[in-house]
Amino acid sequence: MSPTGTRVRDAAIELFAERGFHGTGIRDLAERAGLSSATLYHYMGTKEDLLVSIMTESLGRLVEAGERLTTADPLTRIIGLVELHVLTHAMRRLETRVVDDEMRSLSPARRKAVVALRDRYEALWQDAIDAGVADGVFHVRAPRVARLALLEMCGGIARWYTPDGPIPLEDLALRYAEMALGVLGVAGPPPPLDVDTVRRTRALVDEIW
Amino acid sequence: MSPTGTRVRDAAIELFAERGFHGTGIRDLAERAGLSSATLYHYMGTKEDLLVSIMTESLGRLVEAGERLTTADPLTRIIGLVELHVLTHAMRRLETRVVDDEMRSLSPARRKAVVALRDRYEALWQDAIDAGVADGVFHVRAPRVARLALLEMCGGIARWYTPDGPIPLEDLALRYAEMALGVLGVAGPPPPLDVDTVRRTRALVDEIW
Repeated sequence: MSPTGTRVRDAAIELFAERGFHGTGIRDLAERAGLSSATLYHYMGTKEDLLVSIMTESLGRLVEAGERLTTADPLTRIIGLVELHVLTHAMRRLETRVVDDEMRSLSPARRKAVVALRDRYEALWQDAIDAGVADGVFHVRAPRVARLALLEMCGGIARWYTPDGPIPLEDLALRYAEMALGVLGVAGPPPPLDVDTVRRTRALVDEIW
Repeated sequence: MSPTGTRVRDAAIELFAERGFHGTGIRDLAERAGLSSATLYHYMGTKEDLLVSIMTESLGRLVEAGERLTTADPLTRIIGLVELHVLTHAMRRLETRVVDDEMRSLSPARRKAVVALRDRYEALWQDAIDAGVADGVFHVRAPRVARLALLEMCGGIARWYTPDGPIPLEDLALRYAEMALGVLGVAGPPPPLDVDTVRRTRALVDEIW
């Protein structure tokens, strides 16, 4: 992407996160990106094109990272997915907030492809949960509700995380992984949760984003 | 509230939830409420007055209900709070979505009182969690993070709940209560979670809302 294209994209992420998609005008976007409205059109097409491209790119990265975290063991898999979701929602707060909040703003024609991508990402979670239930490692009575609950719980970090908080991000990711295993009814001794696995997930995030 | 006042309030909740506060114009509000813009002003003051009144009323009810659920036993207390949060976020999806998403839209001058009310509600959760940790019933390494995680997890039901889904709402509330106890590291045999306690919480919601 050209430097100007990146500037437009960053301005859009900020404004959509602050004021919502419908609350952001073309003039606001041009002003934030430091461009004239005419130049802006050249870089973005319609405002909806811009939203679709932000969402597609962000969800595409989540899918790619999630697929690379896939291992045979459902416990390891769900820990990786939780770390991925927590790290990205903390490190890319505004971008992930736009993805999570503005699905409602897409027109039916554009919505389909974005929802398909989100469904692919969520299927990685559901597969890991279902595999853990089948293996007798997870104990949940409503596995689909558990997926929705976990995604909201982990993504919620985007609403409050700041890098200057008292708990380092890698430790936060571990706390979320522990809580997620609780949601999934994992009994017995805690699995090998250590900061090295979080660091590997973080390296993957840095590589893909 | 007069019938027209209620109509304006309902229209505002719908539009703020669909399009965001900044994406909702006075004309949209008047049209949705079936009023002229001049009549609308009489009922609502500014658009921000309307948002503040929606948020204050909703959070005030949560605080009232949460305080009435307060019992000595932290386990019973947290189960009641989870049920309350899940039931209200499912039954009042749009209203709670506006409360959860539009805090960012308040001007600093108006924000303070609303945040104070939200903090009072969240303090009920934190107190229950901290009491459970002190009693050795809950096992969490970061109790404040656990509060934030639980609130997001339970409130997230507003994003996907529909009354025609496969699981009745009271059962969903029980599933969330089980997952919440997992988040809090409650070990051993499950506490007495039954549909009668959910029904009592639901009666409280019906009384206060």
